[in-house]
Parts: sequence; structure tokens; C-alpha cells
Amino acid sequence: MTLETTLAAIRPADAEAMTAARDLQARLTKPAGSLGALEELSVRLAGLSGVCPPPLPEPATVAVFAGDHGVHAQRVSPWPQEVTAQMVANFVAGGAVVNAFARQTGADVMVVDVGVAIPLHGGPNLLDANVRRGTRDMTVGPALTREETLAAIEVGVRVAETLVEQGARALLTGDMGIANTTPAAALIAAFTGTSAGVVTGRGTGIDDDTLAHKVDVVTAALERHTPDPADPLGVLAAVGGLEHAALTGFILGAAACRVPVIIDGVIAASAAVAAAAFAPDSVAAMVAGHRSAEPGASVALAHLGLEPLLDLGMRLGEGSGAVLALPVVQAAVRVLHEVATFDSAGVSEK
Amino acid sequence: MTLETTLAAIRPADAEAMTAARDLQARLTKPAGSLGALEELSVRLAGLSGVCPPPLPEPATVAVFAGDHGVHAQRVSPWPQEVTAQMVANFVAGGAVVNAFARQTGADVMVVDVGVAIPLHGGPNLLDANVRRGTRDMTVGPALTREETLAAIEVGVRVAETLVEQGARALLTGDMGIANTTPAAALIAAFTGTSAGVVTGRGTGIDDDTLAHKVDVVTAALERHTPDPADPLGVLAAVGGLEHAALTGFILGAAACRVPVIIDGVIAASAAVAAAAFAPDSVAAMVAGHRSAEPGASVALAHLGLEPLLDLGMRLGEGSGAVLALPVVQAAVRVLHEVATFDSAGVSEK
Repeated sequence: MTLETTLAAIRPADAEAMTAARDLQARLTKPAGSLGALEELSVRLAGLSGVCPPPLPEPATVAVFAGDHGVHAQRVSPWPQEVTAQMVANFVAGGAVVNAFARQTGADVMVVDVGVAIPLHGGPNLLDANVRRGTRDMTVGPALTREETLAAIEVGVRVAETLVEQGARALLTGDMGIANTTPAAALIAAFTGTSAGVVTGRGTGIDDDTLAHKVDVVTAALERHTPDPADPLGVLAAVGGLEHAALTGFILGAAACRVPVIIDGVIAASAAVAAAAFAPDSVAAMVAGHRSAEPGASVALAHLGLEPLLDLGMRLGEGSGAVLALPVVQAAVRVLHEVATFDSAGVSEK
Repeated sequence: MTLETTLAAIRPADAEAMTAARDLQARLTKPAGSLGALEELSVRLAGLSGVCPPPLPEPATVAVFAGDHGVHAQRVSPWPQEVTAQMVANFVAGGAVVNAFARQTGADVMVVDVGVAIPLHGGPNLLDANVRRGTRDMTVGPALTREETLAAIEVGVRVAETLVEQGARALLTGDMGIANTTPAAALIAAFTGTSAGVVTGRGTGIDDDTLAHKVDVVTAALERHTPDPADPLGVLAAVGGLEHAALTGFILGAAACRVPVIIDGVIAASAAVAAAAFAPDSVAAMVAGHRSAEPGASVALAHLGLEPLLDLGMRLGEGSGAVLALPVVQAAVRVLHEVATFDSAGVSEK
């Protein structure tokens, strides 16, 4: 599907299914409200699917979108750019944290080259969808053309829709791209109207001087492009990244398919605010997996009105926080399918 | 084993294995520290087992210890006492939240009648280890004799050791007992030196008047018995419960076997402070599964120096929060087993 048909397919949450889920929660053998955030999550997912109980969110696939960044030339990261391609090879070989977490939780891992600078060797779980071998430096000019941005978004849409066609009932966002927290910070600043100093963080772990410089880089890019949040394609083109754009499409694709999409860290959160700018109703499909240590992630989640499920001080990316949250999301829905009611179990009420 | 031999078997964490785990974490293909709380958890579990990497915490069993409470007569809960036995039947039939969560995460569920008031019908996963058909009312006299308390502790020790003999590499605490947050509050107050008003909560959901009355009941019991935290058996006998005592033994048994035990909510947390009073080194085996909404749980975890993994506003008990945390614990250890090093994956360092 194109971005246009995908946006047209996104609908608001179904209020009737949400009411049915709330009523069912009240009849299950547990004190009312005792499952805390999991109860409201189950209600939201009923609203997304339009039925109660909603489908169990399994099988699940984490799609790790990889890209490189021209702004790396501004020395915003201590890691060499080649690490993006090296980590893609690590994902394909199954040796990264996201692979270990996915084996633990039963998720599949798919890697999508949407913008890696170095040509990659294929693998059964590596999709070659390279739109451009890395973005341009956003401090010098727009990172991408509008056409490149749209192409990357539609890669993400296509991946989401293909996975759902193949049976996935939960989609998880993953990312890899040395320097990609810099465009993520710029995107979150642009879409939420927050200053670079508030949303820019230490990424993989930079010192105070590099952080101050990174804030200056983000500020300079925003001042150069003055991106307009009412034109989300233009914002992504000016200060985004290829994996950020693809993740935006991936989230919109999930919303169009009415399948939950678990948002990982700051890269996914920046794509989520972009997706919400394209289609506010897409927020109904989003589940915030965890609170990244990266400050922009919290700004983005607050903007979307989402509370993260986990808060473990993680800041790895790759989809690791989304994959770790998957069993919590599945458990929340499983309750509606499997827990006995007071009536059916013969348990007295208070 | 007896309580005495179990206590004698508990050893401090192995510093060498912890150092090896920290060193290994630093060589894995991820930025240093990027897994947040999971890194320190993996180090603690290496210290517990004495090897690096520590064994994967699977298979896992949640043991749900059930008991009734004489203090129920003081109207501290809106639920009839028979619900304890009804919920045990629900656990055995697989219809409770803990069962659904356990199916999601691959844990086994075992139910132990250590003190239910009503005789129960057996089942393949129900152990009859009833010490007494409910405690006495702690506002009138000691809840248990010292002999009954020791017998209940040794039920828990025996369950832990039997499960480990049968192959379990993670033990999870579960509980069921109408009114059991009242003795839990009294235990936490006694062991941590905190007032009843701070540690007493709404349990399954009581109104303001009942909460004020419940605080008075806990205060009255503490004033009547003035329990001495240096005599943990005496504290459990005076103001405890049969499932609280059994969970204390279960935690100590896990520590003696050097197997991690995931602490659920306020009932397990009260048993955990009792276990730490018996054997301070037992804390090395404890993993706090989640932050219960019940205030006493947070007081107890702070006393033990434990940070919970999840914080979802849950307050159900049954072991639900421990079971939900299990994949996080497993993922933390799996990283040490499966993630490639920079060297082995050919990834450049910064």
C-alpha cells in the first residue's frame, strides 16, 4: 500500500469493544483494578482490534530498520559509522542483545536495510530495501529529499503489512544506525515544540563536551530548516533519517492493520510522533514498551499520552526494550481470554 | 532439610563470579551500561550461583502458598474467608490470573495448602501441607505457636528444595489468603521499625474507613506483642500467617540452593524481610519482581536494598507480579550466555 491509502485506512479506536473489555475485566476473578496498567492496556487493544477479547498479540516480529547518517561527520558519536553494518551482520548472525531477548520471548527478528552506507551481504532474515546509502548531513542541507523520505516510509508500511499478512499479530520497532539519536532528537524537538537542550541525550554514552556539541548540532539543524510539524514528510526529510522514516511507515502500517506496535526507545518514539502527525488515530495502535534513559523518549511519549510498561534504565535500541515488554503485552490480553469469571469459577464476591 | 541446616547452608555472594560477569558485560556488543538494571541483575545472579555466566533461570515454578487468618474476624477485608479456598480451586483448575501469566511466560504453577481453613480437594498441582486451619486472631493472642510457625517455615523450605531437586532454576513466590495483607503489614512494621500507618494499605481495595480501622488493628497487634526483630520466629508467630511463614522458608530454601527467588508483592516482601532477619545473606538470592501498589511492599524492598523490575500499579498477589517479571530475569542472564563480544562479532569499538 502507499502512504496515502495507509493513512486512509487508519480509524479511531472502537468504543464498544473498549466498553466490553472494561465490563469483562470487572467480572474476572480478581479485585477490580488489581492488574493496574495491564487492565487499561487490554482495553486499549480491544479498541484497536474492534473485538473483545482482542486477538492474542502473537506471533510477534521485531523489525530492525538500519540506516546511516550524514550528520555523523559532525562528530556526534564516538563510534565509527561502519559499526552500523557490523551490527547488522551481528543481528543476522543472531549475536546481538535483540536476538537473545527475542529468543527469550518468542519473537522473530527481521532486519531491514533501508539506508546503510555500506553494501550488505544478504541473509534469510535481512531485507534489502536500501533507499539511499545514508542521509546527507542535516546541518548542511536537508537530510533527504521528499521523494527519498516517502520511499523510506513506504518501505516501513510494506514491511508491516507483509508481516501481518504472514500472520504476525504484534509488531515491534527496532533500529540500528550510528548517530541516529541526533536526528531522533531533532524530530522530537520539531514535532513537540521542545528545545534541543531538553530532548538531546547521551545516546550510546558520550561525555559532557560531546553532549553540549550534540545539542548545538541539533539546534543548528532546527534553525536552518525551521521544520513545520504540520508537514511531517517535510520534517522527516529535513532532519530525519531513513530508519526513522521507515519506522514511521511501519507504525502507520500497523495502525492500518489494527495490529499493536510496541514502541522501543528514542528512535521509535521519534517515529511515533511523526506517525501521530500524519494520523493522530495511529496512537491507538502504539504501546510504549519502556522508558529509555534518553530524555527525548520521555518527551515524545508524554506528547503521545503514552505511559511506558518498563523502566529499567535501558538505552540500547535495536528493539531491545520493545521485545522485553512483549510478554507483558501478551499477558495483558491473555487475561481477557483465559481468566475465569466469579460466576464461572464459583468464587464469592465481596 | 530443617530450618537450622538451611540457614547453615546460606553463603554470601561470590565476589569472583560477580567480577567475571562485570568484565563479560563490558566485552559484549552493546554500549557499556546500556542494559541498565539488567546488567547489575546479571552480576548479582552470577554472585548467587558462583559461576559466570550463571545458569539460565529456567525451568521456573511459582509456588502459591495459601492460608487463612484469624484476624479476618476484625473485618479488615470485605471478602468472605471462603474465597481463599475458592481461589485455590481456581488455581488448581488453571483459571486465575497467575495461571494465565504462567502460561504466557512458561512457568509451572504449584499450589500449597499450608493453612487454609476449609479442607480442600486435591489435584495434581495441589500439595496438602496444612499445618493448621488458619491462624488465631493476632489482636487476641499470638497468631501461631512457635512450633506451628517452624512447621510452616519448613514446609516452604521443603517445597523450595524439592522443586530445585526436580530441576527448577528459578523459584517464584505466590500467595493466597483473604486478609493476609494485615499480617504482612504487621510483619513489615516489626522487622523494619516502621509504624502501622506507613506500611498498611488497601489490600484488595478497601474504603477509607476500613483502612483506618485496619491501621488500628495492626497497631493494636504490635502493641500487644511488641515483637522483637532479633527473634524472627517469634515475630512470625505473634503477627504472621502460615503462608507468610512458609514463604519465609521458601525464600531461605532458594538461597540455600543458590537459586534465584523472584519476590512478588507485599506478602512475599514481608516474608523476605523475615528471611533476611534469619539470614542476611539470603538477600543475594532475592529478585524483586515488581513494585506492588501496597505501601508496605516498598518499605520492605527499601529495607532489603532491592529495586523492583516492574512498576505497573499491580496489587493482586497470587505471584502475578513475580511471574510477569520472569522473562526479564531470564533475559538478563541470557545476555551473558548468548550475546557476541566485540571480538567474536568483529564489531569496532569506540
